[in-house]
Amino acid sequence: MGAVTEPDRSPKQDRSRATRQRLLEAAVACLADRGWTGSTVAVVAEHAGVSRGAAQHHFPTREDLFTASVEYVAEQRSAALRGLFPAEAAAPDRRAVVTALVDLYTGTLFRAALHLWVAASHEPQLGFRVVELEGRVGRETHRMAVELLGADESAPGVRETIQGFLDMARGLGLANLLTDDGARRERVVAQWTSVLDDVLGRNRRGP
Amino acid sequence: MGAVTEPDRSPKQDRSRATRQRLLEAAVACLADRGWTGSTVAVVAEHAGVSRGAAQHHFPTREDLFTASVEYVAEQRSAALRGLFPAEAAAPDRRAVVTALVDLYTGTLFRAALHLWVAASHEPQLGFRVVELEGRVGRETHRMAVELLGADESAPGVRETIQGFLDMARGLGLANLLTDDGARRERVVAQWTSVLDDVLGRNRRGP
Repeated sequence: MGAVTEPDRSPKQDRSRATRQRLLEAAVACLADRGWTGSTVAVVAEHAGVSRGAAQHHFPTREDLFTASVEYVAEQRSAALRGLFPAEAAAPDRRAVVTALVDLYTGTLFRAALHLWVAASHEPQLGFRVVELEGRVGRETHRMAVELLGADESAPGVRETIQGFLDMARGLGLANLLTDDGARRERVVAQWTSVLDDVLGRNRRGP
Repeated sequence: MGAVTEPDRSPKQDRSRATRQRLLEAAVACLADRGWTGSTVAVVAEHAGVSRGAAQHHFPTREDLFTASVEYVAEQRSAALRGLFPAEAAAPDRRAVVTALVDLYTGTLFRAALHLWVAASHEPQLGFRVVELEGRVGRETHRMAVELLGADESAPGVRETIQGFLDMARGLGLANLLTDDGARRERVVAQWTSVLDDVLGRNRRGP
């Protein structure tokens, strides 16, 4: 199928794309584990099994590599989440959707993004790019939440309800940073799913 | 009045207490501005106008100084917030309470705490102490929220509603880290105040 949709792609281009992907995945893992201070292009190149020169060919600066990596992994996770609840299927269980959205903010991607955000708050060369990235990822997550929750944003208060819910998910992610907060989080998610049901009404999506 | 309640305190003890307070306040400001990497005892001592020896007399290690500073400023802010809504007064306006609680998570204290939390996630010597600190501050904030919101935690779901609301406040703080998110935050707070009114019922506190 690849040969049909992208007839001109050579094995060399495939290798280059695979290298790029390995670097992006290694960069997120590195950021999550070591924080911004411990995350350099050299460390990531080594983890990805790529030469430093090749890494710098793909990402000329440290800022390029780490902002691109968070965006790439966020896109992967969005696509995976949409895949769990395909639009053509019947309206999904709202509790499952709420849990899946909250799960976006626990785990490696959130830890990596958090390190990048916090570093950006006192590193001006990073700040501007992270603000743009945060805007893009935030808008995509909001769109996806509206869609999967079956919410009607033309009704008053619905937009702010979803925004507040995503802020809560982000706060739950922060609470999970140093200790496993899973049991408490599950109780909060159960309660807030029923609150969302009251505010948003029953799920309107589906055939 | 100090002379009546603490008759044995000498001018020397007063000076020592004032030095300690200056160090704690300077440490939070430093952490918020420069992050954990840029925050050393020497930098804080200079900002506080205190000798490095005096700083080390009060706080033998860097970890001592910064964890104590976040706890101290959190206690100051809690006391100030309780002062705004004294228990003997009539039931306060819930929107004002929600706004004041959310405000705990914007500004210098939250930025400082966030830097400490994030550093603790990959610095083991800091991790254990920050987990303890987070637990103490979190419990105190929850107690205060229950009290000021006039919530009855014996009713099902109320505890988790308040927890989720405080997670949302934390998430709103994070969203305010790199850009001024005040206008969006105000709309979210307005909507979620009305959601809290529905879940918690009208304010039960007061005469």
